[in-house]
Amino acid sequence: MLSGSEPAFLQGNCQVLDVGVVGGTGYTGVELLRLLAVHPDVNLKMVTSRSESGRKVSDLFANLRGFVDIEFTEPDVETLGACDVVFFATPNGTAMTMVEELLQRGARVIDLAADFRIKDIDEWENWYGMKHACADIVAEAVYGLPEMNRDAIKTARVIANPGCYPTAVTLGFLPLIEQGLIEDSHLIADAKSGVSGAGRGASTATLLCETSENFKPYAVDGHRHLPEIKQNLAMACGHQVGLTFVPHLTPMIRGIEATLYAVSKADTPDLQALYAQRYQDEPFVDVLAQASMPETRSVRGSNLCRISVFRPQGGDTIVISSVIDNLVKGAAGQAIQNMNLMFQLDETAGLLQPALMP
Amino acid sequence: MLSGSEPAFLQGNCQVLDVGVVGGTGYTGVELLRLLAVHPDVNLKMVTSRSESGRKVSDLFANLRGFVDIEFTEPDVETLGACDVVFFATPNGTAMTMVEELLQRGARVIDLAADFRIKDIDEWENWYGMKHACADIVAEAVYGLPEMNRDAIKTARVIANPGCYPTAVTLGFLPLIEQGLIEDSHLIADAKSGVSGAGRGASTATLLCETSENFKPYAVDGHRHLPEIKQNLAMACGHQVGLTFVPHLTPMIRGIEATLYAVSKADTPDLQALYAQRYQDEPFVDVLAQASMPETRSVRGSNLCRISVFRPQGGDTIVISSVIDNLVKGAAGQAIQNMNLMFQLDETAGLLQPALMP
Amino acid sequence: MLSGSEPAFLQGNCQVLDVGVVGGTGYTGVELLRLLAVHPDVNLKMVTSRSESGRKVSDLFANLRGFVDIEFTEPDVETLGACDVVFFATPNGTAMTMVEELLQRGARVIDLAADFRIKDIDEWENWYGMKHACADIVAEAVYGLPEMNRDAIKTARVIANPGCYPTAVTLGFLPLIEQGLIEDSHLIADAKSGVSGAGRGASTATLLCETSENFKPYAVDGHRHLPEIKQNLAMACGHQVGLTFVPHLTPMIRGIEATLYAVSKADTPDLQALYAQRYQDEPFVDVLAQASMPETRSVRGSNLCRISVFRPQGGDTIVISSVIDNLVKGAAGQAIQNMNLMFQLDETAGLLQPALMP
Amino acid sequence: MLSGSEPAFLQGNCQVLDVGVVGGTGYTGVELLRLLAVHPDVNLKMVTSRSESGRKVSDLFANLRGFVDIEFTEPDVETLGACDVVFFATPNGTAMTMVEELLQRGARVIDLAADFRIKDIDEWENWYGMKHACADIVAEAVYGLPEMNRDAIKTARVIANPGCYPTAVTLGFLPLIEQGLIEDSHLIADAKSGVSGAGRGASTATLLCETSENFKPYAVDGHRHLPEIKQNLAMACGHQVGLTFVPHLTPMIRGIEATLYAVSKADTPDLQALYAQRYQDEPFVDVLAQASMPETRSVRGSNLCRISVFRPQGGDTIVISSVIDNLVKGAAGQAIQNMNLMFQLDETAGLLQPALMP
Repeated sequence: MLSGSEPAFLQGNCQVLDVGVVGGTGYTGVELLRLLAVHPDVNLKMVTSRSESGRKVSDLFANLRGFVDIEFTEPDVETLGACDVVFFATPNGTAMTMVEELLQRGARVIDLAADFRIKDIDEWENWYGMKHACADIVAEAVYGLPEMNRDAIKTARVIANPGCYPTAVTLGFLPLIEQGLIEDSHLIADAKSGVSGAGRGASTATLLCETSENFKPYAVDGHRHLPEIKQNLAMACGHQVGLTFVPHLTPMIRGIEATLYAVSKADTPDLQALYAQRYQDEPFVDVLAQASMPETRSVRGSNLCRISVFRPQGGDTIVISSVIDNLVKGAAGQAIQNMNLMFQLDETAGLLQPALMP
Repeated sequence: MLSGSEPAFLQGNCQVLDVGVVGGTGYTGVELLRLLAVHPDVNLKMVTSRSESGRKVSDLFANLRGFVDIEFTEPDVETLGACDVVFFATPNGTAMTMVEELLQRGARVIDLAADFRIKDIDEWENWYGMKHACADIVAEAVYGLPEMNRDAIKTARVIANPGCYPTAVTLGFLPLIEQGLIEDSHLIADAKSGVSGAGRGASTATLLCETSENFKPYAVDGHRHLPEIKQNLAMACGHQVGLTFVPHLTPMIRGIEATLYAVSKADTPDLQALYAQRYQDEPFVDVLAQASMPETRSVRGSNLCRISVFRPQGGDTIVISSVIDNLVKGAAGQAIQNMNLMFQLDETAGLLQPALMP
Repeated sequence: MLSGSEPAFLQGNCQVLDVGVVGGTGYTGVELLRLLAVHPDVNLKMVTSRSESGRKVSDLFANLRGFVDIEFTEPDVETLGACDVVFFATPNGTAMTMVEELLQRGARVIDLAADFRIKDIDEWENWYGMKHACADIVAEAVYGLPEMNRDAIKTARVIANPGCYPTAVTLGFLPLIEQGLIEDSHLIADAKSGVSGAGRGASTATLLCETSENFKPYAVDGHRHLPEIKQNLAMACGHQVGLTFVPHLTPMIRGIEATLYAVSKADTPDLQALYAQRYQDEPFVDVLAQASMPETRSVRGSNLCRISVFRPQGGDTIVISSVIDNLVKGAAGQAIQNMNLMFQLDETAGLLQPALMP
Repeated sequence: MLSGSEPAFLQGNCQVLDVGVVGGTGYTGVELLRLLAVHPDVNLKMVTSRSESGRKVSDLFANLRGFVDIEFTEPDVETLGACDVVFFATPNGTAMTMVEELLQRGARVIDLAADFRIKDIDEWENWYGMKHACADIVAEAVYGLPEMNRDAIKTARVIANPGCYPTAVTLGFLPLIEQGLIEDSHLIADAKSGVSGAGRGASTATLLCETSENFKPYAVDGHRHLPEIKQNLAMACGHQVGLTFVPHLTPMIRGIEATLYAVSKADTPDLQALYAQRYQDEPFVDVLAQASMPETRSVRGSNLCRISVFRPQGGDTIVISSVIDNLVKGAAGQAIQNMNLMFQLDETAGLLQPALMP
């Protein structure tokens, strides 16, 4: 293979962004690197990892051989702060300890973890089991779901990149909730995720032998994404909603499917038209034709959310199915979509690849 | 390997049943043969298949080498009619054309397909798209869910063996429905099945490359198991219920998980105790401890249904998770449980094996 | 989603190739479309399918929604002949019946099936069980393995795109064979393929339930790729070689791994240096560092072949492991690499994406 | 479910063995428990685990609910020593520290780890990286491959239960090696294992997301099972052999397939007859019909080894394919087969179940 000279498209472009990634050894990290490596407007300046410092990134992730030539380094505030944008692909509670120093140095921050997602600090501390380090920045941070907050994202200094389940569920309910068309005291979101959502950490629970040929619900009594989804829906309709959210673990690597149930109010309009119209200008939401079934593989490796809406047997229960790739639209891809918006790039830059199928 | 002499336990038992299997080339068929081959009270007399007639059963299914020594033969009413019991592991619409002749000859019949499941002939013809051949026998047939109909099963001549989804969903809702504890106008059953539920027929849709690493809903507008489930629930509570049933295809071979949602009425009792008590004498329903999560692999290859009941955040939405192996409790195992009951054998005979895990 | 205007990069380029695809409904077909859809120098003019004629390509392959906007059409010699290049992603025996008409009209042809791979017509007819339709074009056709035949490919009118196993095995043995460093009378290639190699046709043998959680050899007595590999190796060393080739079916969608065994002659040099040097200028062959293990996922969706060479316990048996994505370097990607060479495009155009991992 | 009274077949049998299991939390442990739980001659007296002490076994392994009612306890020499037989399903290096105390108390020992497999202590210490604790017992221990050592097993106090790869490879080569029919200086064993062979310990390398949809060789430079296989083959032919052994990781839970290659000497007889005859009295080796392909799923959950032998294109290279379930014939099942032999039970007791397929 040709030795690692930079791809041609990274040269001779005067508006290239300097990008830093903190915590590049997990699945959202390597996915971010996969997408950044071929983004036409990005210069990947630093990828940090305390545990892998000094090792070539492509030694850990063989798919990046020939695409990412740098080593993991210790996090360094000066180098990171000199970047245009810093992504945090770290465990919860990490970004909040570094964000202020980076903002002071002029960098903008996109956190793929949960540090800035929940506006109510008490609720955040309750669900995440730790003290928050910078409540003021939570107030300032913009929730990075472009389909809800595109304008605010453009000028944000700090983006709270949405969780994977909240992305799939919120986009699924949004048109109905915004229009007040459903009884919102007993919403149901039955969601299924591939195993990559559980991360790359060593654990018995996510071994192939524990998760393959197996299907199960988990966290039925309460999952951290519940308050995040409820916050989104409340934002969209102006009041608290009642939601039962049950996640399930599915024997595959990537993908989330959320099946949503709601009872319609009396005078529901043409649902297909409602969804098509709501998302007609969205580059990454694809409303399928009537009676089409979304499938997770149709978005594998892509930043799309595909949605169908049903009214079984013409009854008053509405069913929505929404699929995303949890690592792309549910994490790294959406983070890059946010970066594109923040820096006035084409919103789709670096994100237009068909899903890998089969 | 020792050549195929009969297992010792099949000899010297004076109450051995002569058993025939019509249509032994699909997944419910081979599963039936796997279980019958080591059942202590069974003499497997005939396995029919028009397409594979003359071929050794164990040439088609290598796992049966050394256990099943006979060949597939053309269906023959005389030989089948001389059996004590005949299982139909055939497509829908087959058993109904042969059942009368077999009953006349004194055989009893267990149909693993849908011919005798729906009491309302019009509804059956509507969902299954064909004319029914013997409405009178539908009236006589007993729906073979032992947890609802044990006594009737014991004396039945014809058993309608339940569908896989109906088994998982009915057993999940049963304690609540029988006691009238939930609002039953908007029940929701979000069910997920392994691919073996779709059968062994050649088809692009169930290729590994189409179903692996993929998750999707299907038949959202209406699945044939919907009327069957509704009939069961109506039987249990005495009136029609409202149910939305959404099946999903999961990338694994075996297993069904059904997550059920219902809104409780005001004065719901201790749900854990309710379920434990309802199923305390059932050999094949296992109510898990509070906060335990059922997983499909815990019943792989076994006849058990494992169930948990939840009330997330103490709200009024009740969540039940119910898992079975679709080929065992959802098909072949339940059929054998019915046979055991019909012939006054130990109800668990031939069915007491721990699930294969991992 | 924005309705299907053409991607920006397909406009304003004066050297865009008009491309036709015959037989776009199999896995090599859809993979070709996935790659062509974002190739900067390609205008996809026609995708033919007799069975799906009139249907939108993206209705069959949801991953192409928004990327491929045309319909399947009946094959039409005039339209195809007006293309710069026509790919055949058809069953064996199809391209040979159309190639002459297309060449006459000035199109160049890349056949992803086997019609032009074997120079010895008798041998081809023997292995493929049919009469060849155009022996003269076989003589003219260039075997499209750029690492062996780059210059000839550039001027070829007809490319025989290599089979998947032959690509992995030939690239693995090539440096040793070219240098005459091994005893070549008893070469062994133990190869393992994902299920997509068996195609998208309806069949019981490739159902998820038949292939998942299962591993097996097949065609041990002789596989069609055997004569192709032997022809390649003979070409490289100037004489016939002895080869035992055993393919295996592996429970995954994509990927081939070939483990190759050969006994070295007395004076073998530094194998690592030999391989590194042989492939140093090859954009799509990546020789891994000593003791690194190739894994198929490291090339999933990518056009790379990754190779390692070993000499266990310092003995005289050399072991090579070679991995490719059977649908990319083993089919569609290599076809596009050939197209790039034929039309003086950058050899890597449209093919520089990191593998999807995890 | 009926509360955990003992299965009927465990009562009223005067020759029941008291059995202890040391280290019951790994995959060989739980498989041993699955098989022992329904073994007609076994009373499971103690299952030890330091980490899980005090927890019900069936809380950790839900498939054992209703079958195993005891708790994990700290290992206790007195209780274990009072057992008829003690199985070690522990990491390498554990059994050797306890075996003497148990033998003194009259228990017999079956070690499923490697402590007693290699007769050459230096070689063992070299491959296993630790000092051996009881060389004298290594000398006494019997290698528990019944097909080689049945008589010695019957009277052994200590059984070294074979490794998974050595079982599949040795049974595959045995007939040829015993008869001296092949050149044995360059034998090749290309073996493929499911992920359960790597154990239940938390590790990134065996996560579903690292191993699913992936295939790779590992330990090409030397695997601990290499000296064990070579010792077996040397025992069978009376001299050292040359063997290249390459294991591969396959994306499935259970199963090993070994494809073996050897060059025949001049006057090779009918291979099919040779294999059929060699194994005709073996209850757990099944030689398939000519041209049949062994597949791992045909032995899933079963104690069988299935073997086919080929001579591709009638050449002088012989190819053998041998499949086992690594957790059964490759570990727990073979251990029970050994126990049966040691205590004059029917050799097949508790082991006659058809494989779970699909």
